[in-house]
Amino acid sequence: MNLVVQKYGGSSLADAERMRYVAARVADRRARGHALVVVVSAMGDTTDALIALARQVTDHPEDREMDLLLATGEVVSCTLLAMALRAQGVPARSFTGAQAGILTDRVHGRARILRIKPARIWQALEQQEVAIVAGFQGITAGTDITTLGRGGSDTTAVALAAALGAPMCEIYTDVEGVFTCDPRLEPRARRLPEISYEEMLEMASQGARVMHPRAVELGAIYGVPILVASSFTDAPGTIIHGASAMEPTNKVRGISHDMDVAKVTALGLPDRPGVAARLFAALEAAHVAADAIVQNASVHGPETDLTFTVRKDDLQRAVAAVEPALAAVGARGLQTNEALGKVSIVGTGVLNTPGYAARMFRTLSEAGINIELITTSEIRITCMVDRDRVPEAVRALHAAFELERPEALGT
Amino acid sequence: MNLVVQKYGGSSLADAERMRYVAARVADRRARGHALVVVVSAMGDTTDALIALARQVTDHPEDREMDLLLATGEVVSCTLLAMALRAQGVPARSFTGAQAGILTDRVHGRARILRIKPARIWQALEQQEVAIVAGFQGITAGTDITTLGRGGSDTTAVALAAALGAPMCEIYTDVEGVFTCDPRLEPRARRLPEISYEEMLEMASQGARVMHPRAVELGAIYGVPILVASSFTDAPGTIIHGASAMEPTNKVRGISHDMDVAKVTALGLPDRPGVAARLFAALEAAHVAADAIVQNASVHGPETDLTFTVRKDDLQRAVAAVEPALAAVGARGLQTNEALGKVSIVGTGVLNTPGYAARMFRTLSEAGINIELITTSEIRITCMVDRDRVPEAVRALHAAFELERPEALGT
Repeated sequence: MNLVVQKYGGSSLADAERMRYVAARVADRRARGHALVVVVSAMGDTTDALIALARQVTDHPEDREMDLLLATGEVVSCTLLAMALRAQGVPARSFTGAQAGILTDRVHGRARILRIKPARIWQALEQQEVAIVAGFQGITAGTDITTLGRGGSDTTAVALAAALGAPMCEIYTDVEGVFTCDPRLEPRARRLPEISYEEMLEMASQGARVMHPRAVELGAIYGVPILVASSFTDAPGTIIHGASAMEPTNKVRGISHDMDVAKVTALGLPDRPGVAARLFAALEAAHVAADAIVQNASVHGPETDLTFTVRKDDLQRAVAAVEPALAAVGARGLQTNEALGKVSIVGTGVLNTPGYAARMFRTLSEAGINIELITTSEIRITCMVDRDRVPEAVRALHAAFELERPEALGT
Repeated sequence: MNLVVQKYGGSSLADAERMRYVAARVADRRARGHALVVVVSAMGDTTDALIALARQVTDHPEDREMDLLLATGEVVSCTLLAMALRAQGVPARSFTGAQAGILTDRVHGRARILRIKPARIWQALEQQEVAIVAGFQGITAGTDITTLGRGGSDTTAVALAAALGAPMCEIYTDVEGVFTCDPRLEPRARRLPEISYEEMLEMASQGARVMHPRAVELGAIYGVPILVASSFTDAPGTIIHGASAMEPTNKVRGISHDMDVAKVTALGLPDRPGVAARLFAALEAAHVAADAIVQNASVHGPETDLTFTVRKDDLQRAVAAVEPALAAVGARGLQTNEALGKVSIVGTGVLNTPGYAARMFRTLSEAGINIELITTSEIRITCMVDRDRVPEAVRALHAAFELERPEALGT
């Protein structure tokens, strides 16, 4: 039936006028013969307003109540978009996450989708209706409402596309696609017409705000191609998809950065098995995701230091979680640094291609930027630096790898 | 378990401060050994704001979408009240109408409750939690969200009290109970400590804004006593309950009034069976409730006039509904009057007690107020008059029946 799943973010639905504009885009697409499922975020800054309201009532809102509260934001958007479509003569029907059959686990505030039972969505599509689905939310087996946490609406969209077997998931947002680096930092940044899941994952997890890595990962697992494009223009966007043979593999595709990094160093850990496991079990129990993890085997004695990074917002929770574990294993202490950022070069093969790492470190060094920590993956090299120096580092690396050139090969 | 169902209206939950105040009241009640189910309306003017938002998107929002949109208002309140209670150390859990098991028919915007399956409410009560329920809403067998229309949250509360077998339903609002007439019109109005379901029904259906007749009716059917009191004070309120032998029956209990009345007169209807039925079938199909209906058998020929009243807001819909029916039966035409109000005297036996009707008509006549239409029930006499004269009529009748006196007997 030529099915497309689209997702529109909060800034694309900020007011009634934007709502009508998005409705017109959806109507136009439907007129071109597509069956449509449209996933929506909450309007503009609705979610922040609801959080503020809860904070007026209590300093410690309970997670379950918070989820039920926040889920109303996407419900409001989906009903209004359905109304806007009907006003333009397009049959449309709104669905809460529960009605769309998004079944999740019970981890409030950051629930994972377990399964989708999209019976009502199929029914709507069979009746030629556009199905509008409230993103970011689901329901547990015990009929509690959950929210999916960061990247939630993107995740809803990609998961629905996978469950419905849609050949494409389109994420409409306020940027025109994936760029070689943040265009706000470097005006010569260039839009990438396509990028592989793996590269996008690295870009996203290293701070490119375009899409949450979780949704990209889901796309990779289920092989759903994802188009990221602007809802404000008709620019073509970026397609995220499986590796393409047409692409030269050995090149830097982009520079990503992240201003939201905190570093935790556990000092004087006994160098024996099980110590790190204990630490990260404590973090996991507190639902804090550690990003980079670095430990050097000790060469000077029975003790070692272990460093990991978390999101700045999670720092307090991370410290509270690991402190008892550190005390229990007899560590010497804890150091934290909240004023860090990350800058990464991303591209298939960068790590294994001689010269990339060296060129990255040399570029930063020539700019007088000190490297606090280095981590790597097969397709990414990341340096942690002072947060204040991040924009400068991005610009220097963009120039060093000649990313402003359409066919930049990097070496 | 000493169960009480309470309901708090929107003005009682208008902001975070009021929310904390209501939480303190609930906490206090629980500390005195009660198990509590608390039904909430949307905060302040949230519902109006959501309606305005929908109107910005379209002039004709669809009923189903509107219900899903509006239902979010009560969900927001119930989560915030649950948070406020937890912040005060009281275990509490919020429930949407669907989670509370409020099953309704499919008439969006004015759904009727079919059945309540309060399994989750019982579960919360067994765990010593206060159950906070979003009023005004339910769910259909097809998992669509419905709203109950006017008086919806009161209806939720009374229906839950009936389903749970609670010995009392307490409705907290911004008035101190049921008065002999509207205290804003007549400062000598007196609070009634108690009133029968039947009298309250007549008061409510004739415009006393304290409680919707639908909820009173439900209380009468299931024998649930209802306390109406202010959430802003500790004043004792009014108990609505079954007829009490301690009460003298023959007296005027109060004067109710309604400023929101429109009159429709169908002119020159053929005087044969089936004509009125056809008219009211058309009204019913349009979901317009006609209030007073007056027809005089014709004495001068084969034609008759028929008059009925509707809410001012329903006038356009009523006219649109009956016009085709009138044309089909060959009526001569239609007259409408939007500028009417009603004033009623209410009390068990008023119609059958000599002197009440006469005193009412004489009082209005002496005040120079013309009576447009008269309707009666066993316990009520209603006169329709110019809307502008309603306040004056209320004051004149309050004085004529000596309602300012604590033991006013009316004759």
